[in-house]
Amino acid sequence: MGLKNTRSGNYPEWYQNVINEADMAENSSSPGCMVIKPWGYGIWERIRDVFDEKIKETEHENCYFPMFIPLSFFQKEAEHVDGFAKEMAVVTHSRLSMKDGKLVPDSKLEEPLIVRPTSEAIIADSFSKWVKSYRDLPVLVNQWANVVRWEMRPRLFLRTREFLWQEGHTAHATAQEAETETKNMLEAYRDLCENTLAMPVLKGRKPEHEKFPGAVDTYCVEAMMQDGKALQAGTSHFLGQNFAKSANISFVNAQNQQEYAYTTSWGVSTRLIGGVIMTHADDEGMVVPPKIAPYQIVLLPLIKKPEDSTAVLAYVTKIQTELKKQFPFGEKIRIKVDKRDKAPADRFWEWTRKGAPIICEIGMRDVESGNVMVKERIKLGTPEGKQIMSAEAFIANIGSRLENIQQAMFDKAKKRLINNIRTDIKTPEDFRKYFSESNLWIEDNKQGKVAFVLGKWCGDPESEAILKELKITIRCIPFDQTKSEGICLLTGKPATIDVIYARSY
Amino acid sequence: MGLKNTRSGNYPEWYQNVINEADMAENSSSPGCMVIKPWGYGIWERIRDVFDEKIKETEHENCYFPMFIPLSFFQKEAEHVDGFAKEMAVVTHSRLSMKDGKLVPDSKLEEPLIVRPTSEAIIADSFSKWVKSYRDLPVLVNQWANVVRWEMRPRLFLRTREFLWQEGHTAHATAQEAETETKNMLEAYRDLCENTLAMPVLKGRKPEHEKFPGAVDTYCVEAMMQDGKALQAGTSHFLGQNFAKSANISFVNAQNQQEYAYTTSWGVSTRLIGGVIMTHADDEGMVVPPKIAPYQIVLLPLIKKPEDSTAVLAYVTKIQTELKKQFPFGEKIRIKVDKRDKAPADRFWEWTRKGAPIICEIGMRDVESGNVMVKERIKLGTPEGKQIMSAEAFIANIGSRLENIQQAMFDKAKKRLINNIRTDIKTPEDFRKYFSESNLWIEDNKQGKVAFVLGKWCGDPESEAILKELKITIRCIPFDQTKSEGICLLTGKPATIDVIYARSY
Repeated sequence: MGLKNTRSGNYPEWYQNVINEADMAENSSSPGCMVIKPWGYGIWERIRDVFDEKIKETEHENCYFPMFIPLSFFQKEAEHVDGFAKEMAVVTHSRLSMKDGKLVPDSKLEEPLIVRPTSEAIIADSFSKWVKSYRDLPVLVNQWANVVRWEMRPRLFLRTREFLWQEGHTAHATAQEAETETKNMLEAYRDLCENTLAMPVLKGRKPEHEKFPGAVDTYCVEAMMQDGKALQAGTSHFLGQNFAKSANISFVNAQNQQEYAYTTSWGVSTRLIGGVIMTHADDEGMVVPPKIAPYQIVLLPLIKKPEDSTAVLAYVTKIQTELKKQFPFGEKIRIKVDKRDKAPADRFWEWTRKGAPIICEIGMRDVESGNVMVKERIKLGTPEGKQIMSAEAFIANIGSRLENIQQAMFDKAKKRLINNIRTDIKTPEDFRKYFSESNLWIEDNKQGKVAFVLGKWCGDPESEAILKELKITIRCIPFDQTKSEGICLLTGKPATIDVIYARSY
Repeated sequence: MGLKNTRSGNYPEWYQNVINEADMAENSSSPGCMVIKPWGYGIWERIRDVFDEKIKETEHENCYFPMFIPLSFFQKEAEHVDGFAKEMAVVTHSRLSMKDGKLVPDSKLEEPLIVRPTSEAIIADSFSKWVKSYRDLPVLVNQWANVVRWEMRPRLFLRTREFLWQEGHTAHATAQEAETETKNMLEAYRDLCENTLAMPVLKGRKPEHEKFPGAVDTYCVEAMMQDGKALQAGTSHFLGQNFAKSANISFVNAQNQQEYAYTTSWGVSTRLIGGVIMTHADDEGMVVPPKIAPYQIVLLPLIKKPEDSTAVLAYVTKIQTELKKQFPFGEKIRIKVDKRDKAPADRFWEWTRKGAPIICEIGMRDVESGNVMVKERIKLGTPEGKQIMSAEAFIANIGSRLENIQQAMFDKAKKRLINNIRTDIKTPEDFRKYFSESNLWIEDNKQGKVAFVLGKWCGDPESEAILKELKITIRCIPFDQTKSEGICLLTGKPATIDVIYARSY
């Protein structure tokens, strides 16, 4: 009952199969855009709710800023920033008219509008009106919004022209306070990825050539997918006074002097769902961590004889009612009772492919014995994967069971990450040889293949050409540096900086 | 400490003052779009959370559909629907390029894309892929999204080019099931407006000429603002098979015949916040119903002598901690402690103009006596508006106090609505005379002016010209009809239909 494609067979096709079979999202008739379906959107809602709570705990407030940004806002940026992203949706007309029976754009705008690829420009403009004195600082806001980047090779969740995200924007009186904010939010992303998505990440700083245009420093969390590629899971930018100067966010400080504010921005998007898929899904389909599963438990009534129906459904309802009194992770439990008139095996496999953490099959025999058949998604196919136990015990321990599943998923992914950061490559030759080998799917290093390389980098501009040639990237400069002497794995020059090299999404 | 303008003095300016002084939203540098600031967005979050729960209780699931709709999707609609709204943002290019130092649109799209004014077209396209058999029905989805309509006279919350809303879309096997859905969701809107926003509404059906283009029937909830004008608070549409036919949403029914599905759509938007303002705000500023107040209680420590600071703050913290054990409306209580280094009177008036339901001033004297000074926003300026009471009693009764405020706000608005629906106008002459008088602000009918007229309508097309001439509209055909004979207040012809006539937003 597995997927058409396996991870080792055809990884990209497998990724598509997981999404289709779990019914999480699909391509839309709107080119390059996706429809996020209930199971996929439910996962996003969970991620959003968890992180939104963190945002508010840390004194940030939600706002909403316009999605249309006047073209002129990008003019200055374009002149000063060469890494300026130009692939954007441009609104040029505000009307449709019928000409010879055909609808055509009409009422040309005096100034074209850009659909936000990110909102630094338009938010800095508001900040400049809000901030007059040091008493107005810090400004700590966030918005949950849709953004558009004109991707040429769209892929569900990973790269779509429109996607959903959260973008935090803050302004501070001092550089130090802004840098602290930048790092605090990066840490909030690590916490989100590891403790909510069960997706381990590496924290670090981006090299100069990978920075967000306009940023002084870009920090990131990087995750390892099952094909050994890196996924940038979140970024946090210290923008210094760059945006403050171009938008004139200035204030009178305590010494009564005029100063420019220091700003930050940070975001995570629906791309995280792609990360969750490639961290946890297996050859049978999706596997969702309990903390973000739209349903943590699916109850499947099995009715063999019509006359059993009342008794079985009553028993299932009783179990559901009792489960609702439990609060795993200190939250309301999420349960689905799937009574659909469909073969039990079909319903079971449907929820298995969706990756529901726990599926309980409940038939007449269980009614009589007071039991339930408990199946854990992560133990599918193993002897412990099927447990018949008393409903009472199942209900009483549901919290710790879900916590154990969450922990086991994290531990497995963490082991994969640790086992697959290669540190023994010391020369450009070995490095080149390694990355010239095809990047097979890896599982706990079984095939002796590794994905990431932790090694030295000289930082010279010429090294960037070699990165391009080898089709790899520097994912980050980890926070803890050995400071040891070595040679650059790209140029062979003496180097002290430790970096993570990898292929990436 | 009131607003620059009063309701009776200059109502439109008053509305602006309320929003500015409560710091709920502002106009943006993006033409015709608004920035929703934390206090305004916090109110929207509360409305969203309450209605989202209702959506899920009623078996609807959240999805997300693309914001870009290919132009061709509107072609057929434009041909068949004359009421077709043409004011839309049109994306024609996907790139910005630098030409002679100026950024210009580049990479013209083969087909222009429309930024969704509403999503029937793109969602029907998905439904056509999802629905094959009667077993796939009903499809019950909703999305929370931003939409764009190119308003020429934007006003904060009421009419902005971009706004936020919820749009539900469903498909059913029978017309009856779809009509039931349409009416159930209209009832859900009435419940939201009356029991959450404390804003009484009239339920009814729109006349033919006010229907949503493409709908068989449009139902609505209409509220009365304090200037006697009507605000359409929400609409629910029975679309029959119109969209199903144009998008080919067809299915094999139980009798194994091919059929078109019946669809519905329904929505409410950030416009509701404009309705809340014009229902509850007064000449001192905003008044927010406790159920949607971002903060229900604001605690203001009053520190006259520095040496009192520790004791006062400790006492305030103790009260806050105790209040958090209370669950008004069965939810977490929302409290703000405002310790800002600002004159007490300034802090008090700031929260008064924001309309926080309860403000408590707490100083050293209260620490010693174990009291709090409690001020209710709706009793501002009255003798009962200030109550010194024991902290213990205040905390113990906070739930019922907030419930009473919520109820009192609804009752006051309900009385206004009831008192100001005029039913004694029987001739076109009186009707014309009535609406030719300027529509002064009304409060509980004091000035003997009324706003709505409940009267007869003949339904003839010629009557529409008279509506335009008098600058009024038929808000709805109320569900309960007298069926009595009378004469049309527009044409003087014999008429039996009862309608609500009013000026409107």
